[in-house]
Amino acid sequence: MKLSDIGERSLVELARRICKLGPRVEVGIGDDAAAINIGDRYLVVTTDMLVASTHFPPGTKAEQMGRKAVAVNLSDLAAMGAEPLGLVFSVGLPRDLEVGFVRRMIRSMDAATRGYGAYVVGGDLDESEEIIVTGAAFGLANKGRLLTRSGAKPGDIIAVTGNLGAAAAGLKILLERLPARGYGELVRAQLEPIARVREGMSLAKCGYATAATDVTDSLAANLWQVSKMSGVKSIIDRARVPVHPLALKFAERHGFEVEEFALFGGEDFELLFTVRPEGWRRVQLALKRIGTPVAAIGHVERGRGVYIGREGKLERLPDRGYEHFKV
Amino acid sequence: MKLSDIGERSLVELARRICKLGPRVEVGIGDDAAAINIGDRYLVVTTDMLVASTHFPPGTKAEQMGRKAVAVNLSDLAAMGAEPLGLVFSVGLPRDLEVGFVRRMIRSMDAATRGYGAYVVGGDLDESEEIIVTGAAFGLANKGRLLTRSGAKPGDIIAVTGNLGAAAAGLKILLERLPARGYGELVRAQLEPIARVREGMSLAKCGYATAATDVTDSLAANLWQVSKMSGVKSIIDRARVPVHPLALKFAERHGFEVEEFALFGGEDFELLFTVRPEGWRRVQLALKRIGTPVAAIGHVERGRGVYIGREGKLERLPDRGYEHFKV
Repeated sequence: MKLSDIGERSLVELARRICKLGPRVEVGIGDDAAAINIGDRYLVVTTDMLVASTHFPPGTKAEQMGRKAVAVNLSDLAAMGAEPLGLVFSVGLPRDLEVGFVRRMIRSMDAATRGYGAYVVGGDLDESEEIIVTGAAFGLANKGRLLTRSGAKPGDIIAVTGNLGAAAAGLKILLERLPARGYGELVRAQLEPIARVREGMSLAKCGYATAATDVTDSLAANLWQVSKMSGVKSIIDRARVPVHPLALKFAERHGFEVEEFALFGGEDFELLFTVRPEGWRRVQLALKRIGTPVAAIGHVERGRGVYIGREGKLERLPDRGYEHFKV
Repeated sequence: MKLSDIGERSLVELARRICKLGPRVEVGIGDDAAAINIGDRYLVVTTDMLVASTHFPPGTKAEQMGRKAVAVNLSDLAAMGAEPLGLVFSVGLPRDLEVGFVRRMIRSMDAATRGYGAYVVGGDLDESEEIIVTGAAFGLANKGRLLTRSGAKPGDIIAVTGNLGAAAAGLKILLERLPARGYGELVRAQLEPIARVREGMSLAKCGYATAATDVTDSLAANLWQVSKMSGVKSIIDRARVPVHPLALKFAERHGFEVEEFALFGGEDFELLFTVRPEGWRRVQLALKRIGTPVAAIGHVERGRGVYIGREGKLERLPDRGYEHFKV
């Protein structure tokens, strides 16, 4: 049986079953990041690999590769509510690449990381056939304030930061070489995503969030993960999903379904989280203070599965999004 | 200018100059691992990427890839004197690879990591053209006990654990398809290296070691790094370099220079370190207690450069070893 027969999610599940948890491992494989008990706090660690042929659409610049590698890793820490400390990078590069390209990539990694209040502290440079950028990010979380995918409870509000669909629309423009004029924001959302680091820390600090993840595979797929890991049923209201207005305009103009971008497109790197209803007002205020829009899109019930309300009646939301190794 | 024109070391130096150090960063780019001040201790973090076409000789098994990826990362923590906590892995795999291959690789990662007293806590699986295994390891070090490359002082003894030259001899057998019968230990040294984790922790604990690194590029190249970063001159005695007896036998039988393996071959993953002379006896005892041979091979003086004694007179030891991107 080949990897393409079972797909990435089954492989992650395989790894989760194989790797034993140690006494200090609070959260292991299967969440956005791992959490290790180091006494007074949790050390939170994650890694993400970007491979040119799958992750960097044609025309991606060195600066954009560097910035995206920082964002995807810090987004995982944000989804755990951790404060980032630093990043290390292992970078595989073809030997005939220009030195200037690597200089620009490293400069953008350094600048982007410092923009999030962290530092690039180490790395490894290797020869490879295509460009590969692997980051590992580490940070600290206070005990009792860790945001996992498994804490959602019946009665909780389901919420998401920012808007959805821009990154997937941007990817469509790049892959199908559609005219980008007027849609620069969509292309940037794809090539230069921003991690919601302050938002994650703020959510952890305010204390009412019960679960969190970042929207990487898709809103649908990531909400399915939260629902499964929390053992609950999620119901979202289609009309309240914050679709990026430019993604909507782009979809209408080119005859695409905007739901493909907003519900099933990945890489928005927004935070998807659940909140105890009595804390919703506080969460809104905390995010408003840092200038980040937030929308309540649904609620959690007893049961299983993810459902979406359309014109008064509920239907099952397909568990669909980006997955490696799948056709 | 292309990467192959300047080589890996110049690229690392470029990255070191670009990346700013934060207030909590005690050791950044340029040592075996980074060290971050997290209050009472240092968090020590490293990353190493293994790329099939450069790091895995023909015939390397999935289990060996997994074990080597663990060892190369933990060896960096060992060289800092840190206690390992865990590892995360980003693995790039071709989509037509067999699931069984990946299962065997992950199982060996888990088993090897636990053998060192740590845990695999997370990862990322991606599609790539060739097999890429990037690890990131993290651990803790007590303050005042961190072993860096820059602490060697005039008067110190230069020492190394174990024997040298086996991994490079093993690589020669694999690359030139020489008969391996009777040389299994050399091939295993190349394919299944062992990280000196307990030794590194023991050296840090006993308190007399002043600098340390692991022998990855070569004894010569790694000693040059320590000498440059410490601002000292190193003098080693050729007769005291612990050459692996089987590497010697292999070299003699096939007409190779054993010094090529022991002085200029890489990947032995032994610890190369300096010790205050008054503590040498204690260091010997500490390593004897865990069953690891150790040899004093030279001493540190005021000045610059690395010299080797041959038949009573000193000559400059070439700064030569494995380097990526170089022909």
